[in-house]
Amino acid sequence: MKKPLSIVLLSGGLDSTVTASIAEKECDLALLHVNYGQRTESKELHCFNSIAKHFHVPQERRLIIDISHLKEIGGSALTDEAIDIPDGDLTNKEIPITYVPFRNAHLLSIAVSWAEVIGAENIYIGAVEEDSSGYPDCRKEFFNFFEETVRLGTKEGNIKIKTPLIEMKKSEIVKKGIELSSPLELTWSCYKDEEEACGQCDSCLLRLRGFDEAGSKDPIKYKV
Amino acid sequence: MKKPLSIVLLSGGLDSTVTASIAEKECDLALLHVNYGQRTESKELHCFNSIAKHFHVPQERRLIIDISHLKEIGGSALTDEAIDIPDGDLTNKEIPITYVPFRNAHLLSIAVSWAEVIGAENIYIGAVEEDSSGYPDCRKEFFNFFEETVRLGTKEGNIKIKTPLIEMKKSEIVKKGIELSSPLELTWSCYKDEEEACGQCDSCLLRLRGFDEAGSKDPIKYKV
Repeated sequence: MKKPLSIVLLSGGLDSTVTASIAEKECDLALLHVNYGQRTESKELHCFNSIAKHFHVPQERRLIIDISHLKEIGGSALTDEAIDIPDGDLTNKEIPITYVPFRNAHLLSIAVSWAEVIGAENIYIGAVEEDSSGYPDCRKEFFNFFEETVRLGTKEGNIKIKTPLIEMKKSEIVKKGIELSSPLELTWSCYKDEEEACGQCDSCLLRLRGFDEAGSKDPIKYKV
Repeated sequence: MKKPLSIVLLSGGLDSTVTASIAEKECDLALLHVNYGQRTESKELHCFNSIAKHFHVPQERRLIIDISHLKEIGGSALTDEAIDIPDGDLTNKEIPITYVPFRNAHLLSIAVSWAEVIGAENIYIGAVEEDSSGYPDCRKEFFNFFEETVRLGTKEGNIKIKTPLIEMKKSEIVKKGIELSSPLELTWSCYKDEEEACGQCDSCLLRLRGFDEAGSKDPIKYKV
């Protein structure tokens, strides 16, 4: 039986890579990578290409889109080099300065437009609500309403937004990745653009805690 | 009393210009122009700048964003030069080939990100459901759900989507524009990129019928 075609938003990080492994079980993959002017783009793009190769996704089903105008709009430490990446603090309950205003709506809109053109039925995004950095555009409810918006705003109205990790803890994502033989060694999560992951930003702290709680060792290298 | 800051999506066409005139009565304006790879972009950008000048909007409150990756995604006669712009047919009830997949979600997402950074309270978009070309992302319901998505997916959750023209007929928009002394002579609506408007595409036919029904003469020049 023919598998449905699905687009996976693949940043090159741990979460999106595990999401691709989940989608791969039931779907034919099309992979979308979006450059939004983040500091770590060259690293992420390298990871994207390695991971796409791992999943045997042909060139015509890979799309790399540049929305570095988000950098022009600014307002985030991830895109504005005048704002330092703070050291991580997983007890902080406020929305952190690394929040890129409404970023996920941009990523999903691109995926939806592409889905309409290539006839993809699903869009997978590796967003996490629990155990995340507290970004408002990572809430389950946000994705539910976005899906309704897609139903109303597209030609066929049948494209679904899939968030298989949304309720997982980072340790569960790591376990799922290991279970599915996801290429975790090819991923990059650190917010800083250095040769090895810093081990100190929010993203590194979350990842390291995830591997630790999963009783596993992170296959990538860290500076500290 | 200080007026609220509002972003108006200003393509340079009739509808968005009348929308700016409506917003100007109650708000301080910030103007956003988006180039999505449409054929008529150079014309539209020229109109945008003339209209922004008309409204005395300073440079720092004008933003021009390029999302011509929509052209790369394709699927529309407005962005794909391999697809001809058909002659207009206002009796056609199908979604026309000029539909740019999910375009308004892209435009609004950019506006929302900018609104979060500059502290704008409203986003005005001159979409028309009635008497329009039948694009799914021009429906009132689409904008309602998008506003909910914005409430859930942003930091403050208080940005409103305003669609003052949504239920108007084109003739009512023309009348409103004349009533508000909107600079209709500075606008461009035609889907073709020629020196004078073609007078034959869907967009020209709608505009001409609107002026006709309003009992007024369109101040721009037509080829036929």
